[in-house]
Amino acid sequence: MFKLDPRLEQDTIQIGDFSLSKVLLMNDVRYPWVILVPRVTGITEVFQLNAQQQLQLMKESNFVAEKLKALVQADKMNVAALGNIVTQLHIHHVARFANDETWPAPVWGRGQAVQYDKAERDTVCQQLTQLFSELLQDNDGITL
Amino acid sequence: MFKLDPRLEQDTIQIGDFSLSKVLLMNDVRYPWVILVPRVTGITEVFQLNAQQQLQLMKESNFVAEKLKALVQADKMNVAALGNIVTQLHIHHVARFANDETWPAPVWGRGQAVQYDKAERDTVCQQLTQLFSELLQDNDGITL
Repeated sequence: MFKLDPRLEQDTIQIGDFSLSKVLLMNDVRYPWVILVPRVTGITEVFQLNAQQQLQLMKESNFVAEKLKALVQADKMNVAALGNIVTQLHIHHVARFANDETWPAPVWGRGQAVQYDKAERDTVCQQLTQLFSELLQDNDGITL
Repeated sequence: MFKLDPRLEQDTIQIGDFSLSKVLLMNDVRYPWVILVPRVTGITEVFQLNAQQQLQLMKESNFVAEKLKALVQADKMNVAALGNIVTQLHIHHVARFANDETWPAPVWGRGQAVQYDKAERDTVCQQLTQLFSELLQDNDGITL
């Protein structure tokens, strides 16, 4: 039974499920930052997914990167599977701007996360649910 | 006509070509670090590749990550498309070890690259050419 890593659960806001992955928003207002976590147990590398899961992850990841970049008009997407600290396979999609506080360095391990307040959180969750609606599923696993 | 970004050309050693991507070794003995550069002009994001190219890149990237991890017995692969400095689309595959000098932080922008000497360079090029032989092409574009 798949269980989200506790550190990912603590640091993110859950948006919903694609057919393969959980869709999480990093709880950090500094960057529009979406994480996909394939709901597959015991996996730490993309190549450990089976062929069908690899293909589905590619589709979900490219979908998120393209939609998020367009929504926020980012200068660049940073897409990465790192996992040096949290080993459960997860793929970062960070929208970057030439004037953000860490540019051009990567964001990981730099500065402190600034959490969304309640109103911001509701707004961004609603935006992302709409943005990703094409691939988000309802609770019965049916694509909406 | 595809032309490799000058910064990538300067910082890497060319191993060869897969059917979509150039295969480069980062000239930095601190990490086994392979970069794939799809030979497609004017592209900065994976999602800008067409569907067939996206699929091929996924295959090439997963192949490199799996083979390189097994060869060097890495603790974790860090796979990332960043491109904040060099905008030409390129995908990093960095073999990481729990005792490497940057662990668990990402490697980008930390410390100084240490170049291979001539003998090391010849050895590692030969190793990687053999490791990736299944997907490497000869000069006529035929898979060897």
